[in-house]
Amino acid sequence: MIELLTIGDELLCGRTPDANAAMIARELHAAGLAVQRITSTGDDPGRIAAALLSCLPGTRFMVVTGGLGPTGDDRTAAAAAAAFGDTLAEHPHALSMLEDALKKRRLPMNAPRRKQAMLPSTCTPVANPVGTACGFIMLHENRHYIFLPGVPAEARAMTEQFVTGYINEHAGRNHAISSRSLRVFGIFESAIQEALSTAPPLPDGVQLGFYPHFPEVMLRLTAHGPDADDVNRRLQQARDTIAGRIGEHVYAEGDMSLVETIAGLLAQRNASLSVAESCTGGLLCHLITGVPGSSNWFERGLIVYSNAAKTQLAGVDESILARHGAVSEQTARALADGVRACSGTTHALAITGIAGPGGGMPEKPVGTVFFAVAAPDGCSIHQRRFSGTREQIKLLSAYTALDLLRRCLLGSSVD
Amino acid sequence: MIELLTIGDELLCGRTPDANAAMIARELHAAGLAVQRITSTGDDPGRIAAALLSCLPGTRFMVVTGGLGPTGDDRTAAAAAAAFGDTLAEHPHALSMLEDALKKRRLPMNAPRRKQAMLPSTCTPVANPVGTACGFIMLHENRHYIFLPGVPAEARAMTEQFVTGYINEHAGRNHAISSRSLRVFGIFESAIQEALSTAPPLPDGVQLGFYPHFPEVMLRLTAHGPDADDVNRRLQQARDTIAGRIGEHVYAEGDMSLVETIAGLLAQRNASLSVAESCTGGLLCHLITGVPGSSNWFERGLIVYSNAAKTQLAGVDESILARHGAVSEQTARALADGVRACSGTTHALAITGIAGPGGGMPEKPVGTVFFAVAAPDGCSIHQRRFSGTREQIKLLSAYTALDLLRRCLLGSSVD
Repeated sequence: MIELLTIGDELLCGRTPDANAAMIARELHAAGLAVQRITSTGDDPGRIAAALLSCLPGTRFMVVTGGLGPTGDDRTAAAAAAAFGDTLAEHPHALSMLEDALKKRRLPMNAPRRKQAMLPSTCTPVANPVGTACGFIMLHENRHYIFLPGVPAEARAMTEQFVTGYINEHAGRNHAISSRSLRVFGIFESAIQEALSTAPPLPDGVQLGFYPHFPEVMLRLTAHGPDADDVNRRLQQARDTIAGRIGEHVYAEGDMSLVETIAGLLAQRNASLSVAESCTGGLLCHLITGVPGSSNWFERGLIVYSNAAKTQLAGVDESILARHGAVSEQTARALADGVRACSGTTHALAITGIAGPGGGMPEKPVGTVFFAVAAPDGCSIHQRRFSGTREQIKLLSAYTALDLLRRCLLGSSVD
Repeated sequence: MIELLTIGDELLCGRTPDANAAMIARELHAAGLAVQRITSTGDDPGRIAAALLSCLPGTRFMVVTGGLGPTGDDRTAAAAAAAFGDTLAEHPHALSMLEDALKKRRLPMNAPRRKQAMLPSTCTPVANPVGTACGFIMLHENRHYIFLPGVPAEARAMTEQFVTGYINEHAGRNHAISSRSLRVFGIFESAIQEALSTAPPLPDGVQLGFYPHFPEVMLRLTAHGPDADDVNRRLQQARDTIAGRIGEHVYAEGDMSLVETIAGLLAQRNASLSVAESCTGGLLCHLITGVPGSSNWFERGLIVYSNAAKTQLAGVDESILARHGAVSEQTARALADGVRACSGTTHALAITGIAGPGGGMPEKPVGTVFFAVAAPDGCSIHQRRFSGTREQIKLLSAYTALDLLRRCLLGSSVD
């Protein structure tokens, strides 16, 4: 069993989220090693020592970051010595690694830096491949304490190059762990639960985790057991069970985003895209252009906030705006057809709606949004009514437009 | 003494950094309330119960987030009941708050959602102003446990509107605490530190905190003492000292964003804005339209990813593109002048650059960005060279454009 302990006053005053803990947890998790608890404490040596000694009963490995640098508030080595009844001593091996690291950086040795070689006398120093402060290991009551510097790049390098292997080796593991991720849009967590409640149960020992990241949900399936083939077979079975219930909402597996999925579908079809957006105000284009290489298939975007812009840029007939209003299916259609025509792309998306908090009308309340997807074989119109903040309605609208395009592309043949 | 406990398997597998813990710690710190320890545990009810009971000896308040939603892995209420020898019961008040919240969102009640009103029988429910799952309070061995949902926007709203005040009240504090925030763009933390190192020292007992939130930095000044007038006098003095060194980079105080600052400056001047952006791909427009009411002063945006779009939409002469390239000061100027002319706005911004990771050239490497600010009295051109990821370069570019407009507006007279 593994615990993480992160040290630093900056964590307790919320200066930044604890990126080291997340990084180490992620790396260990990917290696099939489960973290049971994460604790953050300040720079006070008494509290550090107490945290080192208050492990969970089954903990065999504790990975500790922070407080190993040259400054006065770096007190982890002293706290570890105090906690484990040890004293600090200058380690010749730590000193020679420090000298090498300083030489490589053309930095002079001085007293604060030399302090980094003062470690608990019974510890084993561990090389830091990208910084000057080395890490170290201590054994206490059959537990392994692995101390790393808090500088994120150093903690990361040592985790990848040392920690994972060390724990795997000393845990004497002999079974397989694997996981698969399904990326879902258009159905919220509670509706997924309901859809799955009548599905066949997942195979034994397969865990399903929900990772909502508004407006999406990621589902993660994890399984373990003595046999790797059996683990993967059970994962596949679980995946198929879920896809059988909510498959249309699963837009990708693994690390692929919705825009990356669309980029792949467009490329297969030699297709291209332009956009006219009103209430989303640039968010749809921003999401699209977040993907490197989007300039290969994204031609232009029109942020048509005013009626004049809708008419001048996308050729929306003034009579449509006058008769049906800017937020209407007719305007959505005219925007999509207009931007598709002027840009010469195969496909176009248009969004017009009311993101709020102002601008709602009785027949078109805040959250009313019209979408148009223009393709070579015609233009389809869709209406939604979202609730939430302005930001949430913008996000839901932009993702919905992308998802409508995804479904349109899947329904069309590959070029 | 205050502790935080964050709950969720996703924290232990490093899916996301613990943003709730950082947010709550920051809010409490700003209110002069120090957090002593942060613990993260998984969704297992036994572990949640153990974490609730293994407080530090002096802890009087524990703020707990996560595991209050409608799904099967939301088990915090049951774990709290088990830990404190209580049982779950449907709370009429929690149920009526839930019904109201669902009605507001036009969502139907169902069994998973109704589960959110099942709380420990002795708890006191706390309203959630922005979501459906309410929070609750329990008292155990003279400690106050404050349970909040894990959805970040909900945890934030409840922390700001309830938690800080609750702790202050029950801690029986009787002295004044106040804080002021300065919002800074265009100078990084280390440069701020350096600029302040030669400034007069801050008044006694005034703490300065740095909260980097890329690409901005928020500076927070906090002071406390027996006398409110004295606290505010010292805060003002500290503010003036900082403004004396880095004042030009301080775009606002308090909760005002850069776009909100610009909205105010434009309104004072009866001015309006249009945008043409290339490498930022819609992000600038998205930031602008994130502010409610922006449709009063934002007329249109052109996302001119292709050369054809630059020519057709903003009237950039093809010879400019041929001679100087799309990423050039000439193109930036033509884009800003072009979108200002066709939209009829008083002001216009244009951005053209290379966000990477591809597209760099020896004389114009990735991160090269040109900006143009067009105003009634002419157009100014600016060049920057940023480093970072595609996303960072997009963010730095969009914020730089906004800051250039802010400085332009400040330099012009009020209409």
